[in-house]
Amino acid sequence: MLTEAATPLGVHVRVLAAPADEGAREVAPDVVTGSPTDPAALREFAAGCDVLTIDHENVDHATLAGLEAEGVAVRPSVRTLAFSDKAHQRRAFAAAGLPVPAFVVLDDAEPDHVGAARRFAREHGGRLVAKASRGGYDGRGVWMLAEGAIEGFLAGYEGAPLVLEPRLPLEVELAVLVARSPSGQVSTWPVLETVQVDGMCDEVVYPAPVGPEVAGRAREVAAVVADVTGAVGVLAVELFVVDGEVLVNEIAPRVHNSGHLTIEAFATSQFEQHLRAVLDWPLGPTEPLAPVAVMANVVGTADADPRARQGEALAAVPDAHLHLYGKTPREKRKVGHVTVLGTDRAAARGAAAQAAALLAGPGVAPRMT
Amino acid sequence: MLTEAATPLGVHVRVLAAPADEGAREVAPDVVTGSPTDPAALREFAAGCDVLTIDHENVDHATLAGLEAEGVAVRPSVRTLAFSDKAHQRRAFAAAGLPVPAFVVLDDAEPDHVGAARRFAREHGGRLVAKASRGGYDGRGVWMLAEGAIEGFLAGYEGAPLVLEPRLPLEVELAVLVARSPSGQVSTWPVLETVQVDGMCDEVVYPAPVGPEVAGRAREVAAVVADVTGAVGVLAVELFVVDGEVLVNEIAPRVHNSGHLTIEAFATSQFEQHLRAVLDWPLGPTEPLAPVAVMANVVGTADADPRARQGEALAAVPDAHLHLYGKTPREKRKVGHVTVLGTDRAAARGAAAQAAALLAGPGVAPRMT
Repeated sequence: MLTEAATPLGVHVRVLAAPADEGAREVAPDVVTGSPTDPAALREFAAGCDVLTIDHENVDHATLAGLEAEGVAVRPSVRTLAFSDKAHQRRAFAAAGLPVPAFVVLDDAEPDHVGAARRFAREHGGRLVAKASRGGYDGRGVWMLAEGAIEGFLAGYEGAPLVLEPRLPLEVELAVLVARSPSGQVSTWPVLETVQVDGMCDEVVYPAPVGPEVAGRAREVAAVVADVTGAVGVLAVELFVVDGEVLVNEIAPRVHNSGHLTIEAFATSQFEQHLRAVLDWPLGPTEPLAPVAVMANVVGTADADPRARQGEALAAVPDAHLHLYGKTPREKRKVGHVTVLGTDRAAARGAAAQAAALLAGPGVAPRMT
Repeated sequence: MLTEAATPLGVHVRVLAAPADEGAREVAPDVVTGSPTDPAALREFAAGCDVLTIDHENVDHATLAGLEAEGVAVRPSVRTLAFSDKAHQRRAFAAAGLPVPAFVVLDDAEPDHVGAARRFAREHGGRLVAKASRGGYDGRGVWMLAEGAIEGFLAGYEGAPLVLEPRLPLEVELAVLVARSPSGQVSTWPVLETVQVDGMCDEVVYPAPVGPEVAGRAREVAAVVADVTGAVGVLAVELFVVDGEVLVNEIAPRVHNSGHLTIEAFATSQFEQHLRAVLDWPLGPTEPLAPVAVMANVVGTADADPRARQGEALAAVPDAHLHLYGKTPREKRKVGHVTVLGTDRAAARGAAAQAAALLAGPGVAPRMT
């Protein structure tokens, strides 16, 4: 989608894509095959670029740091990319005075993981959430633990350091997309509601069902996060609302699933804004173009390809904006999304869910919450 | 721009592009090099496609007719493509009872061109417009003739048959984009004003400055034109308003410069609608997303490339939507366009013209009319 935004802007995008990345090849005219975790491939690729940017964090950071030291424009910077580590996020945001859930990090700095977890459970309630600090996405790397389950979980766990937090009584989950340019211009979009199913973002709704105070606070927090992280480009800030308070759940220093509806629903999309930011062009306006907008993810099934089902989806929802990613469908793989603009929240949610279900395959029920 | 619309729809576009067509290569991941006027190239290309469509008329019609006879889905059909001939248009529309300007065709069926032109001038006023029936675009192939100039012009003219018409006192020029699907679904967008400079479309403005009766009549005429031509896909209908009457000036059986603002300004763009139509999917809604929208073409100069000037244009007009075509700028070549949405007609026109001028090059004055 970054490439789709770049073309009309007259920006040439060269993509470094792993051999298995089908999506990039279907969209981009200039794809270099190679792994972004391979230092040699990354270095060779960088030699042909004016600006390096990313749309996922699984890139060799050490090589990027070397390129940065040599003067290559790496945007966001390696310092910002380090914030994709959830333990680093929590510690840095807490240190900066940003509101975050109570947490404890179980890493090498903490010799007694079980003891620390027990103490944390005593202080904050026994029902915990454990999150791998690195490598998680779409619900993977997050475990909801019942009362007393933490010790057994830790005994069986091998992987990246963990962040523990209490299971909070969430009123609503929000996302704020924010863009920041090298010269420090910061712009946020209006606050969005994110709806999760099985820990995976399923639906995003504008406007979020919160009052102006909570919305204002969320945008303010997101702008501070952009400054604290030194972000350049788009940054997604995911927030919890608990007892009327806004807490930073986690962030991603890149364009993000929660911002896909900006393509149709706002004056500037997250993809164009990211490009404008990393090129240090002036940022665009972010006002909404419709009273209501809903994005629903198309979640793959093994036995249907959405690329044969567009006519059916559009027959049911003629005003659906389809976005298919050119990926082979697999169970629980996001293979596309649908955005519907409207004036009525329930109607737009229903339409987006229906179109997404029709694309996903026969017999897939709309994932309504 | 068709390719840009196809990608999110999950539609794979393969482009047959002449070696000199830089734009296609910059945008499309699957470009076959070959001339669409070369029967062998066209036939080989068609073998790999489910549906053949066009974005210009300079394609070998005889080969397309052969493919059509063999059952290939050529959309629009060769019968519709024949309407790119201005003499054929005028005759067929007049025969169908559609309102057209007075005209005479000077072709092989008329042995005495000079005599026919003299008679026409006596009946309809001496100031004539001569139009080549084929091959004209962007003001080329159209000649504005002063009183008595027709004889001298004909003496020096060599080329395609001519259509003569009187120079009419135009109140305004309009365009209606219309889409039609193989199953006969027809949909029009709201009426647009087109502003010409030196015979070249310079600016398109929504809404057109006409009352609801003229607007309704224009959309009605366009829908009839779609049926008369048997169009499949998008068809652009350019109209004159003279003494409150709507006259069909000319049509193009394809996506068209007058419809570029549909990308941002309407619920479905002409490019997506064209794809939906040629694939026989349900057509999308066409309501406006903003009270005012203006498109201004970026007309090239020999000494500046708009692909180095986006930051400057966006600094002046942050809400401009840029579309650069990846073409080397040349004098009077359309190398891009800019769309601005807004609420005030004059402000949006000024902003679009300013952004287009800044992209065109240093010292280029906004082409305000």
